[in-house]
Amino acid sequence: MYGLIGKMIAAPGKRDDLIAILLEGIAGMPGCLSYIVAADPADADAIWITEVWDNAASHQASLSLPSVRAAIDRARPIIAGFGDSTVTTPVGGHGL
Amino acid sequence: MYGLIGKMIAAPGKRDDLIAILLEGIAGMPGCLSYIVAADPADADAIWITEVWDNAASHQASLSLPSVRAAIDRARPIIAGFGDSTVTTPVGGHGL
Repeated sequence: MYGLIGKMIAAPGKRDDLIAILLEGIAGMPGCLSYIVAADPADADAIWITEVWDNAASHQASLSLPSVRAAIDRARPIIAGFGDSTVTTPVGGHGL
Repeated sequence: MYGLIGKMIAAPGKRDDLIAILLEGIAGMPGCLSYIVAADPADADAIWITEVWDNAASHQASLSLPSVRAAIDRARPIIAGFGDSTVTTPVGGHGL
């Protein structure tokens, strides 16, 4: 499996809007086993996204899906930046 | 919801054993919506654990479950340390 843990910074005051856009764009992504969007309670602009895919190719392919491209276009103006991004190799767990 | 993103460092050569112990201990934890254990492909000893709970109390209560206590006891000798741990507030996603 292929995983990602990433931090996204919303433009000031836009985190809720950005989270809503992210959540709208993730329906029906082939190979996506888990995609969780969370707010950072210690940073009003920070969003954490944790993802698990069956493999890296599925993740890469998702970036070309019309729903994902549309979400990225809508999100881009209210993304202020990105924090650390970590690639992982999920082994197992609950919720996959 | 209540989330955690944490990094655990296994004793050298013990990551697979530690991941196995972690995965054995997570069955049937009330309120656990997602608990994913992943290896770090860039660090042979590092494990990433991403968790989502219905609330913080459920997470806290899980630490008293016999299965979790037993896993912690078995894991402790081969845990070399911990990296950053981030508390999150999951909003939604796939796999919850």
